[in-house]
Amino acid sequence: MSTARCLVDGRIADTVAATDRGFAYGDGLFETIACRDGRPLLLDHHFARLARGCARLGLPVPDPAMLENEILALATAEARCVVKLVLSRGAGGRGYRPADEVRPTRVIVRHEWPDHPHTHASRGISSILCATRLGTNARLAGIKHLNRLEQVLASMELGPDAQEGLMLDTHGHVIEGTRCNLFLVIAARLVTPALTDCGVAGVMRAVILEHAARLGMPADVRAVAAHELERAEELFLCNAIIGIWPVRRLVGLCEHLRAPGPITATLARSLRDAGDWPGGVT
Amino acid sequence: MSTARCLVDGRIADTVAATDRGFAYGDGLFETIACRDGRPLLLDHHFARLARGCARLGLPVPDPAMLENEILALATAEARCVVKLVLSRGAGGRGYRPADEVRPTRVIVRHEWPDHPHTHASRGISSILCATRLGTNARLAGIKHLNRLEQVLASMELGPDAQEGLMLDTHGHVIEGTRCNLFLVIAARLVTPALTDCGVAGVMRAVILEHAARLGMPADVRAVAAHELERAEELFLCNAIIGIWPVRRLVGLCEHLRAPGPITATLARSLRDAGDWPGGVT
Repeated sequence: MSTARCLVDGRIADTVAATDRGFAYGDGLFETIACRDGRPLLLDHHFARLARGCARLGLPVPDPAMLENEILALATAEARCVVKLVLSRGAGGRGYRPADEVRPTRVIVRHEWPDHPHTHASRGISSILCATRLGTNARLAGIKHLNRLEQVLASMELGPDAQEGLMLDTHGHVIEGTRCNLFLVIAARLVTPALTDCGVAGVMRAVILEHAARLGMPADVRAVAAHELERAEELFLCNAIIGIWPVRRLVGLCEHLRAPGPITATLARSLRDAGDWPGGVT
Repeated sequence: MSTARCLVDGRIADTVAATDRGFAYGDGLFETIACRDGRPLLLDHHFARLARGCARLGLPVPDPAMLENEILALATAEARCVVKLVLSRGAGGRGYRPADEVRPTRVIVRHEWPDHPHTHASRGISSILCATRLGTNARLAGIKHLNRLEQVLASMELGPDAQEGLMLDTHGHVIEGTRCNLFLVIAARLVTPALTDCGVAGVMRAVILEHAARLGMPADVRAVAAHELERAEELFLCNAIIGIWPVRRLVGLCEHLRAPGPITATLARSLRDAGDWPGGVT
């Protein structure tokens, strides 16, 4: 508990330059990493996505060993915590155009493990379909960049009775939740929306697809139309912190879903058995 | 020159919290204001757009008198400078979802007047059509929010021979430059792209439309298809810092445009005569 809570470029600090391009333009990337018993989970997946984001934005990829050491330094004394990593393009440049030589800013900050009720995972959650849509731009799709106003506005639609909101893109496809990915079960097949034009390709989404493949479970990554929500046999949400939350209700569209349904339960059990469930064994 | 260069929430400072939502999500707005002889230009227009952005994002509108005092404090000793105002949703909240009580962060920072060659305004610039597109989302269109990765990536396409790049949206409409608005002259009518689905409704664009109306110049605000660029008789770019830059070349599409053409020259003269030209009388 006496360890630092925030490192900026490797030093104990809790501020960034007011001219940092992360603050000015959302010019950067982030990762939200579950830690258990002082160690980060699924770090290879997080670093792989960060590297994909760096390639897309033209940022130098930080040394993974350095990042891991800094994450460990923040997480070491904690039974469970969340470590967030933000990598921005740093200060400098002329307006939108970056400087020729980029010196990124690296913020690594520890947050308390969120106190979501255990029943979210065991008995499912209630959700809404958000009015806020996701704009489409293949250039920015899949990566976890810092331009997140659509998610902020969508999350402001959540009332006290909805734990998450689903988002459509501007063409009417279902994409994801405000802070998690979506899986559906349709005709006994696992389906998750393709993220070629918008959305964040979540670490837990990738892990779940790996588990499905290992279990011999048929799975499709494809465009999902909004009307397909109504014929889903199961729905669940996932991210690297919550693991899996079955959806028992999508207000106005699916009122009585099994939560968890059999395929959702099989995947959740597989994650727990493999040690990939973020919340530990509780 | 001994005055402060940066104020954060009204105090001399040059950092913001590493957990500020501006840095985390691009959750906020900005304005880039030309100052001449120690005073900001077109401040009512800037504040009106800021207020529209606040309404859209659910942010409290800052007191205009307070903002003006802070801008004056930074600009007072300068013959010409740029003052940038950033208003973010501050720190706090749970992930994307803001806290119930928002305490915005206000950064006001002075930059040197950019040393663009005078010939950009007098003889025009060379431009390219950027490959990076603008995603469409009416919820975020028109306001000057902090989610600017598309503009950053587009600006990285500019080589040494292009002073600006034009951007299409993902549907193939021409919208704007990376950091300015676009006007075309087609069949002797002034045309500027509608910004209902993406783009920033620039202060100088609004001022130019006012001048056109005052001059009795026919002007259309409408969707502009990419192929219309090729039949433009004149093209020009504008923003609150550069004023008007005629486009003499759009690589591959318009190789020999009059720069300035007669309508562009009339509008530039009208701006100068009214004192609305940002760079002063030079």
